[in-house]
Amino acid sequence: MDINQFVARSVGRWRSQRSAHHLAFRHFEAVESVIDIIGLDLKDNRVIQLCQQHDVDPSLAVSPFYMAWEGQSDWDDTAVSKGSTVLVPVPDPEDPGKGKLLREQGYAESGAAIGQYHFTEDQTFVLITPYDQTSAEEKIWFGTDNLRFRVSLIKTANGTGVVTASFASEVRSTDPS
Amino acid sequence: MDINQFVARSVGRWRSQRSAHHLAFRHFEAVESVIDIIGLDLKDNRVIQLCQQHDVDPSLAVSPFYMAWEGQSDWDDTAVSKGSTVLVPVPDPEDPGKGKLLREQGYAESGAAIGQYHFTEDQTFVLITPYDQTSAEEKIWFGTDNLRFRVSLIKTANGTGVVTASFASEVRSTDPS
Repeated sequence: MDINQFVARSVGRWRSQRSAHHLAFRHFEAVESVIDIIGLDLKDNRVIQLCQQHDVDPSLAVSPFYMAWEGQSDWDDTAVSKGSTVLVPVPDPEDPGKGKLLREQGYAESGAAIGQYHFTEDQTFVLITPYDQTSAEEKIWFGTDNLRFRVSLIKTANGTGVVTASFASEVRSTDPS
Repeated sequence: MDINQFVARSVGRWRSQRSAHHLAFRHFEAVESVIDIIGLDLKDNRVIQLCQQHDVDPSLAVSPFYMAWEGQSDWDDTAVSKGSTVLVPVPDPEDPGKGKLLREQGYAESGAAIGQYHFTEDQTFVLITPYDQTSAEEKIWFGTDNLRFRVSLIKTANGTGVVTASFASEVRSTDPS
């Protein structure tokens, strides 16, 4: 598995069931959302801009994509969580199995972020992203072509403690988008 | 990581938050439980018997353990799910990073079961257990010494479809047992 294959398998509309465990409070949160992942052209302005913002040569980028999500948590039935971001993988020229992932909007904190990714031998995509106050570790893998799993850990900034652990089961949607 | 280290790190009392995603129904289930993992002696009668039941030479077994759990699901607030089982790892003599795991009581179905385990390069314990009607794939890894994560997939017997995906965050308990 390399990042091009991973992005290609991820493109589409997904219905996500996500459970978050807030460990200190032993609280469960359930979130249902729809996630759209759309491939972008390497010449797309948003891709070029994100590279420039991070001082990355745009010719090193591969398989950029756009991700949008809209979801509802059982913590607040009336609130809809909604967002979108552009993501740009930049593989390590020495080792295509790892690299950087630039993102316009962070996962654990808003604002631009750069994560380091690699693939494990069992085809799991692992992404570590440091933020100001926290860091995030995400593992994403496919059960089948139409089923994706994602474990996300939000850690204290020094990486020792885990504040929130969440797990998403994402089923490819056959609904028209 | 080998199975002896993995069992040694797992011994103790854990408070588990588990979320199950019943994929066909998009249903969330939340389960809170206490799990006790206790090392057993290789000469323990329950260990010898389980080996004999599976025609395994007891001298090949390592780090046998006993696991007991007691939990409550939000599907039925009045019901307590409770059980215990003896588990016996039998490493592959050619490759100690993998082997068989004998268990007195199954996870996906009751009754004795034999799973195949291996460790990935990122220290994840992976266990595949075929049952009559289903198969189970479990991944267990440590966040810290006091935090364990577990993803369990219940698949159709032919292994193609995932019926239930669940995720547990297990925090080492400091309560006296």
